[in-house]
Amino acid sequence: MLKTFLAAAAALAVAPALNAAPTLADHADKAAAGDTLAWDFVEGITTEVGPRQAGTEAEVRGRAWAMKWLKANGFAKVAEESFMMDTWVPGDTMQALVGAPYQQPLMLVPLGNSAATPDDGLTAPVVRFASYADLEAAPAGSLMGKIAFIDHAMRPTQDGSGYGFAGPARWTGPGLAASKGAVATVIRSIGTETERTPHTGGTAFPAGVAATPAAALSNPDADNLARIIARAGREPVTLWLKLNPRRLGQTESGNVVGEITGRDPSLPPVLLACHLDSWWNGTGAFDDGAGCGIIAAAARRVAESGRPLRTIRLLFAGAEETGLWGSKAYAAAHKGEPVFAGLESDFGADRVWRIESNFTVSDPELYRKLAQGVARFGVAPAKDVATGGADLNWVREQNGALIDLQQDGTRYFDLHHTNNDTLDKIDKVQLRQNVAVWTAVAGILANHPEPIKRTP
Amino acid sequence: MLKTFLAAAAALAVAPALNAAPTLADHADKAAAGDTLAWDFVEGITTEVGPRQAGTEAEVRGRAWAMKWLKANGFAKVAEESFMMDTWVPGDTMQALVGAPYQQPLMLVPLGNSAATPDDGLTAPVVRFASYADLEAAPAGSLMGKIAFIDHAMRPTQDGSGYGFAGPARWTGPGLAASKGAVATVIRSIGTETERTPHTGGTAFPAGVAATPAAALSNPDADNLARIIARAGREPVTLWLKLNPRRLGQTESGNVVGEITGRDPSLPPVLLACHLDSWWNGTGAFDDGAGCGIIAAAARRVAESGRPLRTIRLLFAGAEETGLWGSKAYAAAHKGEPVFAGLESDFGADRVWRIESNFTVSDPELYRKLAQGVARFGVAPAKDVATGGADLNWVREQNGALIDLQQDGTRYFDLHHTNNDTLDKIDKVQLRQNVAVWTAVAGILANHPEPIKRTP
Repeated sequence: MLKTFLAAAAALAVAPALNAAPTLADHADKAAAGDTLAWDFVEGITTEVGPRQAGTEAEVRGRAWAMKWLKANGFAKVAEESFMMDTWVPGDTMQALVGAPYQQPLMLVPLGNSAATPDDGLTAPVVRFASYADLEAAPAGSLMGKIAFIDHAMRPTQDGSGYGFAGPARWTGPGLAASKGAVATVIRSIGTETERTPHTGGTAFPAGVAATPAAALSNPDADNLARIIARAGREPVTLWLKLNPRRLGQTESGNVVGEITGRDPSLPPVLLACHLDSWWNGTGAFDDGAGCGIIAAAARRVAESGRPLRTIRLLFAGAEETGLWGSKAYAAAHKGEPVFAGLESDFGADRVWRIESNFTVSDPELYRKLAQGVARFGVAPAKDVATGGADLNWVREQNGALIDLQQDGTRYFDLHHTNNDTLDKIDKVQLRQNVAVWTAVAGILANHPEPIKRTP
Repeated sequence: MLKTFLAAAAALAVAPALNAAPTLADHADKAAAGDTLAWDFVEGITTEVGPRQAGTEAEVRGRAWAMKWLKANGFAKVAEESFMMDTWVPGDTMQALVGAPYQQPLMLVPLGNSAATPDDGLTAPVVRFASYADLEAAPAGSLMGKIAFIDHAMRPTQDGSGYGFAGPARWTGPGLAASKGAVATVIRSIGTETERTPHTGGTAFPAGVAATPAAALSNPDADNLARIIARAGREPVTLWLKLNPRRLGQTESGNVVGEITGRDPSLPPVLLACHLDSWWNGTGAFDDGAGCGIIAAAARRVAESGRPLRTIRLLFAGAEETGLWGSKAYAAAHKGEPVFAGLESDFGADRVWRIESNFTVSDPELYRKLAQGVARFGVAPAKDVATGGADLNWVREQNGALIDLQQDGTRYFDLHHTNNDTLDKIDKVQLRQNVAVWTAVAGILANHPEPIKRTP
């Protein structure tokens, strides 16, 4: 690791002297020192709107609020781009009781796409699987009449890679259990919280498998259920669940767009993305109010350093959480419009620590300029290939240039998708560092006249 | 501070050489190194019973569990001492929505003795008071038709003194607001949690003032409501509350007692106390499963070092949280039975940092022996006068000897009375330090032949 790091640092050292416009560098420095615009956005939307569940009236209010804010802050061509989506809502009943051999309540939340239980709840014996692999190994039909408990633990990692290892327990675990006969599934939160703030998120049932009730227990509750099962020995442990999520059918959602129009609007724009919707249980501060605040504040800072050559376009996507509806709608609506480069901020509000691109090898000069521009904010170069955020489908479809400004995700999974995703968790100093890094990167890209050299 | 500390340390240095029985000191040291009995208690009761709301069926199960555990661990005269109490239960509906000028849900829990709202909830404009003093200053009748929001913040302190400054906002705030016409009261949690885990606890309505709905918002929710009110400016902010707590009338609760019988049972016993009940929302790990585990483990350790001269009596009190019912019942039931000294563990499971007594001046030799016995566990002497825990009413009534083994309370109010009061919050190393300190103190007291010299 050290060797790689030193090689990268040496590459920077022999690069030509910093050639970003001094005014842009000044603006990035100013952002690092005193930006308040990103905070203004995230404080505003979490206070005046709060949770913004995709496809609901709360998301409508979120779009209206964001459009008003973008206009008030000098963005051009602010518009709503509507689309229809298949909407699921969580309901207001989420209860669980261990019934035998001991009795006590547990705290859980339904997963996106969970079915409801009968009105008076559902009782069944629980079967614990220590890992997703153990569930995979369970014989067909072996869960008939049972509730599966997928006790697959996730650990915090700086780069969020823990989510990749544990995620299947949520993404496909309930569907897998249902395909083996389970009447419902509870999982240990695919999160790292030590609080009783269970982690929701989407799950998907495979074709031909009817949705069952599916919910996540907080980590302390999963610990407790595991202990209860261990102490019960051979006695069956029963669980009563009562959940009332429901499907609303097709409802309207939408993306919000706006821009800093460039000096040459005929050139492909830089696309900065985030998402406006959130799960119902938090106020969508870390996920992803902060991301929208960061990209908007950075675009403003670039504009303040002088109109950029290229347009900087903002995409505040709708309905990301429940299936990337906004990302897909944007791709469909903007077919034929080339994008110069796409970036998304959707990993909280902690500091950026690394810059990745998918043109590091093909256009090393541009990558070096970007890496050099953010090095003074403590951001390291990397050899990893950027894959872009969830709302950048349209850039991926055109095999476009992508940059990932990797944030420190150590505490991200303590908060995101929980009721603890609230404004007070945002560290203003780290939020400003994000704005500074995004200002430097967006400014360099928006003033880059040549196309980015890409490996076909 | 340093001067006081050095004087106290000097007093210890000139004290006679350590004269507690070496076996006792050995046992205290062993407890510090490897006690598992306190953990066994708190793990067991939180797993096999869970929440133990006073006066309910869950508390009945808690008593049965504790009696079985005490018998299994060799305690004598294990018994239940029943009493009747006036019981309040929280219900299962605790919802709040800001209605105007912005809309969003807030997380809250009812306070003990709260009334219910109408079945379809209650809506009224909110009036914020930054402090309890501001509420006191509000004119009579000025809250007619309003919901009072007492936004009085508490800060963490090592000795828990922050609770004393902020506590009135909960203890008497809703009653005071009701006496000025408020139809309901929400308070900022009298707690220091940064999670959305609001803090419950008892409140009392004065004679002649009917109970109103009264609930606590988590700190993040109180922050949000304060921001909403600030942003609303002159527009009224309305709140909809739906709470369904109720009173069950008289139900049975009880204390659980047990003892290590001394060599001379005619001598007044050492009384070690804790409480068995908890609020409904956590599993009563920190408050006060840990306390019962600590005192029981310490009594066992003393017994293992040889039968003590005096009996060590355990009082696992019932129904502490909702009005010290168990403490009062014990005082009534044991009238005429002198107690040698009383101690309670009811401040979590973090380390003991100080020893206080109410005989430090009148019996300096015994105090010095105790302070010297615990100094090796990092416990400091103090001049403060011990007042004893909540369940030691009977000792106070007889003006008896009291010792307070003060625990580090820095994080206590993050957890107690919230749904986060669960087993995983307990640090095993600090729990063992508690057992070690209690073993040393209980052992010295139980082997002390003379009465304690007390200032009348």
